[in-house]
Amino acid sequence: MTGPAPVSTADPLVERFRAMWAQLAGIGRDPGTGGYLRYAWSAAELTCREWFTAEARRRGLAVRPDGNGNLWADWIPSGVDPTSPAVVTGSHFDSVPHGGGYDGPLGIVSALLAVDELRERGFTPARPVTVAAFVEEEGGRFGLACLGSRLLTGGVSAQYALALTDSDGVTVAEAMQAAGADPAAAGPDPDRLARVGVFVELHVEQGRALVDLGAPVGVASMIWPHGRWRLEFTGAGDHAGTTRMVDRRDPMLTCAHTVLAADAQARRLGAHATIGRVAVRPNATNAIPAQVHAWLDARAADDTALTTLVEAVGAEAAARAQADGTSVAVVRESDSPPVAFDPDLTDRIATAVGAQLTGAVPVLPTAAGHDAGVLAGHVPTAMIFVRNPTGVSHAPTEHATDDDCATGVRALAAALADLAGR
Amino acid sequence: MTGPAPVSTADPLVERFRAMWAQLAGIGRDPGTGGYLRYAWSAAELTCREWFTAEARRRGLAVRPDGNGNLWADWIPSGVDPTSPAVVTGSHFDSVPHGGGYDGPLGIVSALLAVDELRERGFTPARPVTVAAFVEEEGGRFGLACLGSRLLTGGVSAQYALALTDSDGVTVAEAMQAAGADPAAAGPDPDRLARVGVFVELHVEQGRALVDLGAPVGVASMIWPHGRWRLEFTGAGDHAGTTRMVDRRDPMLTCAHTVLAADAQARRLGAHATIGRVAVRPNATNAIPAQVHAWLDARAADDTALTTLVEAVGAEAAARAQADGTSVAVVRESDSPPVAFDPDLTDRIATAVGAQLTGAVPVLPTAAGHDAGVLAGHVPTAMIFVRNPTGVSHAPTEHATDDDCATGVRALAAALADLAGR
Repeated sequence: MTGPAPVSTADPLVERFRAMWAQLAGIGRDPGTGGYLRYAWSAAELTCREWFTAEARRRGLAVRPDGNGNLWADWIPSGVDPTSPAVVTGSHFDSVPHGGGYDGPLGIVSALLAVDELRERGFTPARPVTVAAFVEEEGGRFGLACLGSRLLTGGVSAQYALALTDSDGVTVAEAMQAAGADPAAAGPDPDRLARVGVFVELHVEQGRALVDLGAPVGVASMIWPHGRWRLEFTGAGDHAGTTRMVDRRDPMLTCAHTVLAADAQARRLGAHATIGRVAVRPNATNAIPAQVHAWLDARAADDTALTTLVEAVGAEAAARAQADGTSVAVVRESDSPPVAFDPDLTDRIATAVGAQLTGAVPVLPTAAGHDAGVLAGHVPTAMIFVRNPTGVSHAPTEHATDDDCATGVRALAAALADLAGR
Repeated sequence: MTGPAPVSTADPLVERFRAMWAQLAGIGRDPGTGGYLRYAWSAAELTCREWFTAEARRRGLAVRPDGNGNLWADWIPSGVDPTSPAVVTGSHFDSVPHGGGYDGPLGIVSALLAVDELRERGFTPARPVTVAAFVEEEGGRFGLACLGSRLLTGGVSAQYALALTDSDGVTVAEAMQAAGADPAAAGPDPDRLARVGVFVELHVEQGRALVDLGAPVGVASMIWPHGRWRLEFTGAGDHAGTTRMVDRRDPMLTCAHTVLAADAQARRLGAHATIGRVAVRPNATNAIPAQVHAWLDARAADDTALTTLVEAVGAEAAARAQADGTSVAVVRESDSPPVAFDPDLTDRIATAVGAQLTGAVPVLPTAAGHDAGVLAGHVPTAMIFVRNPTGVSHAPTEHATDDDCATGVRALAAALADLAGR
């Protein structure tokens, strides 16, 4: 073969995916890093939500926000009881700061395209099929991941959630109001939840298991238990130039030791630990800090390993603090117990997808939290993963090929057809 | 003695100091930390400058800003040639973030009170006596310490300085314009500099040498060489939950190792090293950082020790980066060679102050940079230090007693009388 490689493809679904993906690509993207700044309730996220509403309406789906700002687009063919439990699929638009474009939006775009696929095939569901877009899944703005699904299910109270603040001191309530949403309506929504019969979330894989297995899609078995802990290191602020080394009580030293200890302990225990967020006061070149806050993200295959990990990190921090003349407080910010996805539902989806795609569908655990993990405590829930060539996520290089994304749409369509069929 | 301790004191100068100090105490103070946020060209600093202008004018001093925003208040008795080299004293109003109230303002308040002292004694100077207030001494807003004095003396070009940005991306030029100053006037000012005959800066001590010596005031012998280096650690941003430990290239680890290495090397070499400022990208709890910048403040008794220190820190950072799969770049941001204050001037001041205060005046080196250090390269320059009970500086607990501050005013008045006398 000579000449340039052909740009077009024989698969019309790949073309449809590309076209739809291109509509979102520029929204909230930082040209400097190539990453996305789609914070919950920000202008960028609101633009994504408007796009979703328009696309859903163009398909004749009735779009409504719930009191927490999650969007629900219902496909209810005539003759189907609109109050009967729906087959729900979807994800979120918000990103971590400078994150990739796939984590979240891929699940929503795939859901809309899967609806198109089913209709093209002349499929009519026997139950409502709903596409959902959840708010603040990453916790990138207000610090609490899965905020929209936690509010919906009562996993967090409205009072607590509305008072959470972003780095500028703006509360969730204020952000909602600024976006035209009524914070008084926030809170558990048992009616909406009762209309979720099953939930299936499609998501880009955050790791390379599917690459190693040579499979374009897989299904999730469970989510590792995980949590966030704020480590508050307190010392004595002083002049960086003039304070003798022996007189210092520098909390940055205690923090640095703890960063290395968390890494070493996670490796020792086969777990994951990260300190990726730090706040220093006063954060001046020529001042020994008075206080350093660092956030520990810790995950492990089971609760015992996670507890062991966090206790070991805390013990190392405390020992070093004593040597440094500083102090450390460990404050749990969030705590997500292990989630086992519904095994029957997962088997059923794996079978339906396998039949569609000719081949066994890998079943994988994941260490990442998702709205699906929150909903799994309330309704039968499953996840479909799409292969990620680099395995990178929460960074601009996060990626999936257009071909694999089209395969993901077909897998999701197969799952929806199976679950919503007669 | 019974009953409450008397609030008043027999020393009217202590009362005058307290009254004047109280006028400044609330300006730019963060009630949360008790520290000051008096960034250069900010509303708080401008309020301090307005206060200075009013106080100087109330004393009949002619106040003028130079093209760099430094303020000059001239006392020129009739018969004194206004163009003849002046005895200049003063300091700065700007603070490090959440810094103390004494570093800078004490030198300006003491200068005004020393003028009052001289006048009360009926002293008439034979040369102009000028009180100066310099801009952005700390580099707390735009990153380059002693910006005002460096611009005045040509130590930094206007082109370079005006383009410096604060953490919000505001340039020096924009900040000057917003404050009503013309950035086109910034740059070296040889005429103004030629009218500085000698410069004496009074400053709160940043350390406890005077406490240990039992002396309320001292004079400076030299400033340690020092500098700021930006350490740029680059890795691979990724998902904190799902990325296997072996696949990580986490720049936070390299930074943490370097923080500990800088501390250990400084202790080994009898030098000072601090990493008190950090910027993480994206700085999200659930993301392995793509990049961490950390600023190294390093100081030593001589250039050789300083070079050894910075090279050792850089070597440790590079070795760890190799192990972490990250990279590190070391960028020098500022470099202040050692400053020897004028020995004749220092002796003369020590003698004049000693005669006034009955006793030997300690002569101390300091590891802190000052506008006096910049001016020392151009005119005979000296510093007077006032005792600091805790030794703490660049933090809210920075302090000097009212009695010691009054002694500082008397010492400065003695120096000015000696230098400006016939």
